[in-house]
Amino acid sequence: MEYKKIDHQDMEFIRNLINDPERILFGENINEEYSHDELSDTESYPDVVVKVISTEEVSSIMKYAYENNIPVTPRGSGTGLVGASVAMEHGIMIDTSLMNHVLELDEDNLTITVEPGVLLMELAAYVQDRDLFYPPDPGEKSATIGGNISTNAGGMRAVKYGVTRDYVRGLEVVLPNGTVVEFGGKVVKNSTGYAMKDLMVGSEGTLGIITKAILKLLPLPKKAISLLIPFPSLEQAIRTVPLIIKSKSIPTAIEFMQREVIMDAEKYLGKKFPDNSSDAYLLLKFDGNSTEEIERAYDSVAKICMEQGALDIFISDTTEREESIWKARGAFLEAIKGSTTYMDEVDVVVPRSSVNEMVEYIHSLHEKVNIRIKSFGHAGDGNLHAYVLKDDLSDEEWEKLMNEAMDLIYAKARELNGQVSGEHGIGYAKKSYLLQSMDPATVEIMRGIKAAFDPKNILNPHKVCQM
Amino acid sequence: MEYKKIDHQDMEFIRNLINDPERILFGENINEEYSHDELSDTESYPDVVVKVISTEEVSSIMKYAYENNIPVTPRGSGTGLVGASVAMEHGIMIDTSLMNHVLELDEDNLTITVEPGVLLMELAAYVQDRDLFYPPDPGEKSATIGGNISTNAGGMRAVKYGVTRDYVRGLEVVLPNGTVVEFGGKVVKNSTGYAMKDLMVGSEGTLGIITKAILKLLPLPKKAISLLIPFPSLEQAIRTVPLIIKSKSIPTAIEFMQREVIMDAEKYLGKKFPDNSSDAYLLLKFDGNSTEEIERAYDSVAKICMEQGALDIFISDTTEREESIWKARGAFLEAIKGSTTYMDEVDVVVPRSSVNEMVEYIHSLHEKVNIRIKSFGHAGDGNLHAYVLKDDLSDEEWEKLMNEAMDLIYAKARELNGQVSGEHGIGYAKKSYLLQSMDPATVEIMRGIKAAFDPKNILNPHKVCQM
Repeated sequence: MEYKKIDHQDMEFIRNLINDPERILFGENINEEYSHDELSDTESYPDVVVKVISTEEVSSIMKYAYENNIPVTPRGSGTGLVGASVAMEHGIMIDTSLMNHVLELDEDNLTITVEPGVLLMELAAYVQDRDLFYPPDPGEKSATIGGNISTNAGGMRAVKYGVTRDYVRGLEVVLPNGTVVEFGGKVVKNSTGYAMKDLMVGSEGTLGIITKAILKLLPLPKKAISLLIPFPSLEQAIRTVPLIIKSKSIPTAIEFMQREVIMDAEKYLGKKFPDNSSDAYLLLKFDGNSTEEIERAYDSVAKICMEQGALDIFISDTTEREESIWKARGAFLEAIKGSTTYMDEVDVVVPRSSVNEMVEYIHSLHEKVNIRIKSFGHAGDGNLHAYVLKDDLSDEEWEKLMNEAMDLIYAKARELNGQVSGEHGIGYAKKSYLLQSMDPATVEIMRGIKAAFDPKNILNPHKVCQM
Repeated sequence: MEYKKIDHQDMEFIRNLINDPERILFGENINEEYSHDELSDTESYPDVVVKVISTEEVSSIMKYAYENNIPVTPRGSGTGLVGASVAMEHGIMIDTSLMNHVLELDEDNLTITVEPGVLLMELAAYVQDRDLFYPPDPGEKSATIGGNISTNAGGMRAVKYGVTRDYVRGLEVVLPNGTVVEFGGKVVKNSTGYAMKDLMVGSEGTLGIITKAILKLLPLPKKAISLLIPFPSLEQAIRTVPLIIKSKSIPTAIEFMQREVIMDAEKYLGKKFPDNSSDAYLLLKFDGNSTEEIERAYDSVAKICMEQGALDIFISDTTEREESIWKARGAFLEAIKGSTTYMDEVDVVVPRSSVNEMVEYIHSLHEKVNIRIKSFGHAGDGNLHAYVLKDDLSDEEWEKLMNEAMDLIYAKARELNGQVSGEHGIGYAKKSYLLQSMDPATVEIMRGIKAAFDPKNILNPHKVCQM
């Protein structure tokens, strides 16, 4: 595909449209951070960054770009891990981080309408202050809600509450040709035509640019309690998870973690974790509207854990303790990152019953491939995060061993009927694994869907399923 | 579009493939019921009906049909209300009702894998016997699960548990060209490429034929209690709903109903409803794992209802009473049908806060258009079912008045930011209203999606968004 290079005339159009030099970055004024995201070594500079403040601006830019065949890459706060927000073909980057307003809280319909640049942590705090609850809770709280929607972000509370898609009711979207459309709305049910809202969620900025989102809220649960449960081995810990799921007390979150990663987090945060004496832990959370309700739930689960060989049950029932444990959990990614020179990540998801086999396999690679790998993850929903560490390997060794490890991990996930990504998406970095694991007929249809939205392939090219 | 008419050679192919004359209906052997569905006056006969028993048969038929440009219409038990399973271009009808086996119950992953012809009531009973729960609960229990998935069926429990899409984890699909693909799987989370599974749900048999479904189950709640709450007026009843939603006690179901429809149901079932002395009722259901938990929930909601002017609270706390109330509720559609000569239906969904305005508007049409309309519906999720009754109108009067009423109802729904269908789908009968209410740009993309799956437009033509 031949794209037009940005020239003087294009810049003139953008300057006239935006009419505020501070919201346009060009050439050497483009900060290095705009050339990559949080983890992937996918690197490429846009020619111009436009910090948009309205749907109209996004629409005008897309219309112009479409007519002139200029590639456009949308970007939130750049916390992605797979290069989805990197401008592979340069061109225009639309930075939505200034579109960060809460537009409406509708207490009758229990919805909140936000611009895409609102940060997850801002949204969570805003609704909590009003006794309401936005359940999706990915580790990265400084992600924008637009980014969360674009990757269908999951997070810790997915066991009980589901993922981002389940909380998106409606979207305002600017199509690649600049047309503004609405998918869904405030309605709770919808069987009106194809599931455009659901298709848009998780499409990683390749089908349209989200300029407004109507999100579903819940009443804020009144109480929450967490249990940190040490086990003699990871195997025992993980084998307990299906028994918990089958009991009638569905926890809000079921995470697994190992001593190594806990110690990284202690070092990173400069704070002690409640316990680090065991090899493996389950971290469970329960929430509800009364202490008795929660106690009944966690009593039965604690009993299951003890029967399965748990060494102890640490109960965290104050807000402070709760926050300190989950803050440590939320810091795992950064903590592991701080423990090595460079790393790459895996975000596979397998059926819950295969988590144990997957984790054991990943551990076995340390010997097989001779590279360090750390992992933790969402045991309750089969979504594992494994980090392959560069440590002091040379660039060539790293490239070779990392690829070897990745190939083996994704092949194992396929064997276990898993998928390439549970919540981080495909972006640019995981594209080859998507193409390896997916039926060619499905890839062809996905490309047909992309063409239906974006026949000129100007929006976020080379991502997800596009070569 | 020019399709090939079924000829001797095509029949030869089908006979050789199926090798069982009892599973092939041709010409005059095709039962009248195959020419329409449960409500719509959309009528058209297929040339041949094939009662398939395997994915391979479906795949072979589709491959042949694709190569020979023969239209194909999939059909479950034909309980749809919008003509989605009617063979508008004749050709081959694929009847999936013999593919009615439960293939696997996976208690570790809490999933059940079924063929598409399993009936909703069979599925519900199968899992309940094993202390498990499939929450979606549309009124029509003899629908197939394949049909439920194809319309993204909602039902009574959507307030607490969501709709069919939320319980579909994975699908095996035969594409229009005969290729067999899998979308999703047993995994709980998935951000691997576009949301093909979600797109397939609700696509009304236009994108592919579902041959297997992996469904999510929950542990069976141990207790359920229902409250039947009479109000002096429908307005008071419905104004109470947002207050219930905002309270922290989310009921499983919130239905509204009026005396008129209750009396139809009493007549239809030959059984008395617990009360029919008031104009309007809310029917609430609560479920949970302990009597105390449920009592706490319904106590606070009962209090809200009394504050809003409820006349009484009838508590139904035995399985028998529960079943009799919900059986009556489930019979409303058939009961109304029995009270007139012919009817057509509306399945609009509006934001919960606009239910009252929508219902009042529908009532006002009795005078405005001079036609009888009865309604009931899911007050908890804004999904209203209104039935326009023919009574003793002549065909011409009916055609005129019914269209007039429909146009006004859908226009009002649009005005209230509602959608054409909450759970019944678009099919053939509601296509004009979809096209009126939807942005042309969105319709164009939907058609592009259809073309990506079915470039020859042989699968279920003239449905949803296809002219």
